[in-house]
Amino acid sequence: KSSFNQKSHPHRRYNPLLDEWILVSPQRANRPWQGQTEKTLQEQLPAHDPNCYLCSGNVRVNGERNPDYKGVYVFDNDFGSLMKDDVEFSEETSDFFLLKPERGINRVICFSENHSLTLPEMEVGDIKKVVDVWQKQYEELGNLDYINHVQIFENKGQVMGCSNPHPHGQIWAQSSIPSIVSKAQENLKKYFDKNGTSLLEDYVKKELEINERIILENEDFVALVPFWAVWPYETMIVSKRKIEDLIEFSEEEKHSLASMIKDVTTKYDNLFEISFPYSAGIHQSPTDGKLHPDWHFHMHFYPPLLRSAEVKKFMVGYEMLAEAQRDITPEQSAAILKSLSVTHYKIQSK
Amino acid sequence: KSSFNQKSHPHRRYNPLLDEWILVSPQRANRPWQGQTEKTLQEQLPAHDPNCYLCSGNVRVNGERNPDYKGVYVFDNDFGSLMKDDVEFSEETSDFFLLKPERGINRVICFSENHSLTLPEMEVGDIKKVVDVWQKQYEELGNLDYINHVQIFENKGQVMGCSNPHPHGQIWAQSSIPSIVSKAQENLKKYFDKNGTSLLEDYVKKELEINERIILENEDFVALVPFWAVWPYETMIVSKRKIEDLIEFSEEEKHSLASMIKDVTTKYDNLFEISFPYSAGIHQSPTDGKLHPDWHFHMHFYPPLLRSAEVKKFMVGYEMLAEAQRDITPEQSAAILKSLSVTHYKIQSK
Ligand SMILES: O=P(O)(O)O[C@H]1O[C@H](CO)[C@@H](O)[C@H](O)[C@H]1O
Ligand SMILES: O=P(O)(O)O[C@H]1O[C@H](CO)[C@@H](O)[C@H](O)[C@H]1O
Repeated sequence: KSSFNQKSHPHRRYNPLLDEWILVSPQRANRPWQGQTEKTLQEQLPAHDPNCYLCSGNVRVNGERNPDYKGVYVFDNDFGSLMKDDVEFSEETSDFFLLKPERGINRVICFSENHSLTLPEMEVGDIKKVVDVWQKQYEELGNLDYINHVQIFENKGQVMGCSNPHPHGQIWAQSSIPSIVSKAQENLKKYFDKNGTSLLEDYVKKELEINERIILENEDFVALVPFWAVWPYETMIVSKRKIEDLIEFSEEEKHSLASMIKDVTTKYDNLFEISFPYSAGIHQSPTDGKLHPDWHFHMHFYPPLLRSAEVKKFMVGYEMLAEAQRDITPEQSAAILKSLSVTHYKIQSK
Repeated sequence: KSSFNQKSHPHRRYNPLLDEWILVSPQRANRPWQGQTEKTLQEQLPAHDPNCYLCSGNVRVNGERNPDYKGVYVFDNDFGSLMKDDVEFSEETSDFFLLKPERGINRVICFSENHSLTLPEMEVGDIKKVVDVWQKQYEELGNLDYINHVQIFENKGQVMGCSNPHPHGQIWAQSSIPSIVSKAQENLKKYFDKNGTSLLEDYVKKELEINERIILENEDFVALVPFWAVWPYETMIVSKRKIEDLIEFSEEEKHSLASMIKDVTTKYDNLFEISFPYSAGIHQSPTDGKLHPDWHFHMHFYPPLLRSAEVKKFMVGYEMLAEAQRDITPEQSAAILKSLSVTHYKIQSK
């Protein structure tokens, strides 16, 4: 019997945020790939595109015209997944056909009037303005009596279902706490009730000691590849102090977060020297008016690419039916991301 | 206040198998799509492809040569995610760094020697031979003392990460019960302990009464769009009687299942008149030697396409961070699938 080596033997790891195991197969990283490859677009986009419905002054599909905005611009999504209407509903009870109306608001946040930019290419000061708007939106929407959760996120890149390269994110604010958030909350709460401390605060302290999965650190935040990461280059930005939600952020912390986002996304772009696709989003306290001492602000980055700009990790078959699975280990990914420059390759090569 | 209408108002539905809610947005089905589109290949493939590593008599990447098989052929995956080796491991306890070695076996099942076929284009008798092999493999692998779960599945189509069009599926057999299966088991067990009956048996009875989401029915099986389906054209094949696993299948039942698989996948191909991509797989009792009176055999089909052969549903951003979301309702999908012929379009047009 040889002894177990986590760099070469299949194993499972536990995700304490979701109370779930994932399968890690380090020995599989080198299998040949003959499957689907992704298109990569390297064209230089114009600063203003007359056909883009997110650009300043352009008309959207529903006939409305965007103002001549500069900087960040927020509007209600023309094709939202939620509606504000309060509807009459008589609850039925049934084991199999449980259904509840859901109210909410979908918004789009343009990060900049400049069509050609992405977060890593924006100035920290301009990213901070995005964080300012996230903070304001979280507060404004969260204060509505029928909004109990505000999900802020960004889908970047065609491969992530993003239909427009104009730098933008979304907010889906709704009455219910969504399934995944509610699960994370349960586990944060369980830990807090047991230990009287924040799960993520304690976790980050340990990770800083070990220093094997940390890719960036500043005054207020840490960026790391979680021990239980599923996506090949998944990362998480966590606040060092236990901040429950965006409202608690100081000006300095907003600047710190902006700077961390710029550096993480720059490393991403530098990995394969392309505009790196991902879905990213913030997990923070619900806005249900209850106390949430157990919540701890963090931001997830879920990027799909595996070994090159063209080859992504497919979460299919086994992953859909049984369990998330990854090939390259989180420690290998962290080492690679750590080694990459925080100067964007487009600037380096100038 | 208007009264709630599930055909036009956003709502959440409850999935009792996973104890999870999903978001349904019927009003969103008509939004314009300007994002990524999928390539569709309509070429006629040869019955034998000299470059295919799954075809009879060809050499695989690792140098081994396939026998001159006819019909179903099974072999160990050359690039498995699991390894058979038993390794020495001293358990460490930690809140954040829980890790366990995982043993297992990955196999590939070629459904036919004919490179150009897919399940809907195979004869029922030949699909039955695939079911026979699933049964044998489940039994053989499940009898190994270190195998406690046998996941049988198929990834079909490039968009589902399938790198080879040769008709084939996979088996991942392992020591642990994977996260998703273990969650389904928990909920099946909870229901069984409470009611003394099978959750899925009772559910199917109700669905047959309502007859709104049933798309096919034969002597032994029902195919339906679950009330809580996530993927636009997701379906589930469920045995009418409570069968815990494949071993319990009679010859007739294996034939019935084969026929059901042929009909479901034919309807899928007929939907957009292409070879319809999906991930499909079987959920059944674990092979951990314990009694599982709560288990009820079913097969999930998770197809990614949304409105056409080119436009898929992206499970990104909100879905990765918060909750699964769908546009078209399960009832609309069921009506469409029900209306489609069980004669394959390629034959119809002959
Ligand atoms: O084993 P394959 O077919 O090469 O690989 C495919 O299916 C596996 C099981 O669903 C996934 O882990 C892979 O990401 C996918 O590309
Ligand atoms: O709203 P968008 O950007 O058009 O749509 C995209 O993001 C949404 C939220 O993650 C998803 O539900 C859609 O499937 C995806 O295409």
